[in-house]
Amino acid sequence: MENCLIALVREKENQVMTAKWVSEELYEGWRQQFRIRKELVHTKSPFQDIMVCESEEFGRVLFLDGVVQITEKDEFVYQEMLSHVPLIAHGKAENVLIVGAGDGGVLRRVLQHSTVKKADMVEIDGEVIEISKKYLPTIAGQAWSDPRANVIVGDGVAHVKQAGNGVYDVIIVDSTDPIGVGEVLFTDEFYENCARILSEYGLIVNQCGVPFLQADELRETSQRRKKFFPYVSAYCAAVPTYIGGFMTLGVASKNPAGLEVSLQTLKERANQAGLEGKTRYWTPALHRAAFVLPPYIAEQLP
Amino acid sequence: MENCLIALVREKENQVMTAKWVSEELYEGWRQQFRIRKELVHTKSPFQDIMVCESEEFGRVLFLDGVVQITEKDEFVYQEMLSHVPLIAHGKAENVLIVGAGDGGVLRRVLQHSTVKKADMVEIDGEVIEISKKYLPTIAGQAWSDPRANVIVGDGVAHVKQAGNGVYDVIIVDSTDPIGVGEVLFTDEFYENCARILSEYGLIVNQCGVPFLQADELRETSQRRKKFFPYVSAYCAAVPTYIGGFMTLGVASKNPAGLEVSLQTLKERANQAGLEGKTRYWTPALHRAAFVLPPYIAEQLP
Repeated sequence: MENCLIALVREKENQVMTAKWVSEELYEGWRQQFRIRKELVHTKSPFQDIMVCESEEFGRVLFLDGVVQITEKDEFVYQEMLSHVPLIAHGKAENVLIVGAGDGGVLRRVLQHSTVKKADMVEIDGEVIEISKKYLPTIAGQAWSDPRANVIVGDGVAHVKQAGNGVYDVIIVDSTDPIGVGEVLFTDEFYENCARILSEYGLIVNQCGVPFLQADELRETSQRRKKFFPYVSAYCAAVPTYIGGFMTLGVASKNPAGLEVSLQTLKERANQAGLEGKTRYWTPALHRAAFVLPPYIAEQLP
Repeated sequence: MENCLIALVREKENQVMTAKWVSEELYEGWRQQFRIRKELVHTKSPFQDIMVCESEEFGRVLFLDGVVQITEKDEFVYQEMLSHVPLIAHGKAENVLIVGAGDGGVLRRVLQHSTVKKADMVEIDGEVIEISKKYLPTIAGQAWSDPRANVIVGDGVAHVKQAGNGVYDVIIVDSTDPIGVGEVLFTDEFYENCARILSEYGLIVNQCGVPFLQADELRETSQRRKKFFPYVSAYCAAVPTYIGGFMTLGVASKNPAGLEVSLQTLKERANQAGLEGKTRYWTPALHRAAFVLPPYIAEQLP
């Protein structure tokens, strides 16, 4: 009833707006709008509303349930920080689990690391993968056909429940916000299983929203992770189309000493991984700087 | 039941029709919109269009020529980074020149530093000052009546032309983008005079826009400053309502060795200035981290 009402209101609202601008529906009283050349696809999967538009400023934009997930022009910020930070911080990750990230951008970055022998990617919504392959082919590049990639259309929660102890070195959770289909990726049960299936010095990274407007997301997931991991922290990235200042990526490690790696070691690992000169946001120095949190964000951590 | 639903839809429809969204007019194909409760003032001064709205998410918002200058809720990010970084990096600034910044927020932060004996603030548009005093009183707080504050309604370009050699230790330029009234603050003549009126190890900071969308602004002003200063660089801040990822603050110093200050010294100076625990974005560690630029920004520097 309420949803039906909202849909009716949205329809009216859309009639009022000029057809050329598409709004993100995320915050009540503040929003970004993209002027678009074309709506390339707009469909409903069993899990969510999926839309890809050709925008004027950011190239193609993927929306899930009305929320921006990725744009062609700025995807490098989010993907580099979500992938390179955990892999370089770990240093010798062989087995990686990616939950979500149906556009394939994280998979592509993970496979840039020569230490990685296998990357399991579990995305619940096969339509996001198919639509990304068709309309956003540059995001994943050749990653889909890499022999180390194991792409599973399935439930990430069930996957971490069934996986054996200590089988993964790094888990990357690229979910939507903890509403709708992504909500189950922010529970005690999920994090408990993640801790179990990670190897001795394994670590997990997940997106924790934009704390200036979604402080609960970082605070609550950090508290949850603290129950199962000795080290819990977060780092920042300034993603142009995740508006609202820094977004945070929450990290938790089974290594009580945390993730602190010297600049020299980060440089060596980046060099070994062949990342030098290939990134547009991540660098060894920026890796370290990203862990320095402004007080308004730091106060959300346990 | 059906009648009830129709009535509810009508009510929502009315809310949608009457809810007022104000758009920022800055980029052609991308924009932010604030849902506002009330337009508090909207006028044209001899220099620009000035508007203050009461927004739902960010408190009161000041627009100049349709571009967001400051909001009550997130102003601390921009003001702290624009003020504390140069003052703490200098370490013993006594005489400070502020150009622009009619809302008074920079003046307030500058005067928090006990080293400062005099702060000249030159704002070309007296109406911005009067409107800020009336509608945004918390931004400047008691700064307007501080005996060290010398507020001049006048032309910043003429002021730096007339000022004596070496009279200022720090110059902070809080201008609009280099269009309209702020354009003259991005010229060779302006920077040449700034270099002349700065003391031996004097430095200047100015806002250089959001490089993801306004890369020219950082690149061109950095090239200009390079003609008159031996050290030119920039640092980043993630300001929620300056949408588009990091904004940059350009710095230039007469000290060829640059602005690098050890964490220990920054902490001592912050302590001396009484800043500890009083900032929500700036900290000594964040000060240093802000100078680490992602490659997509660093490549704009000369």
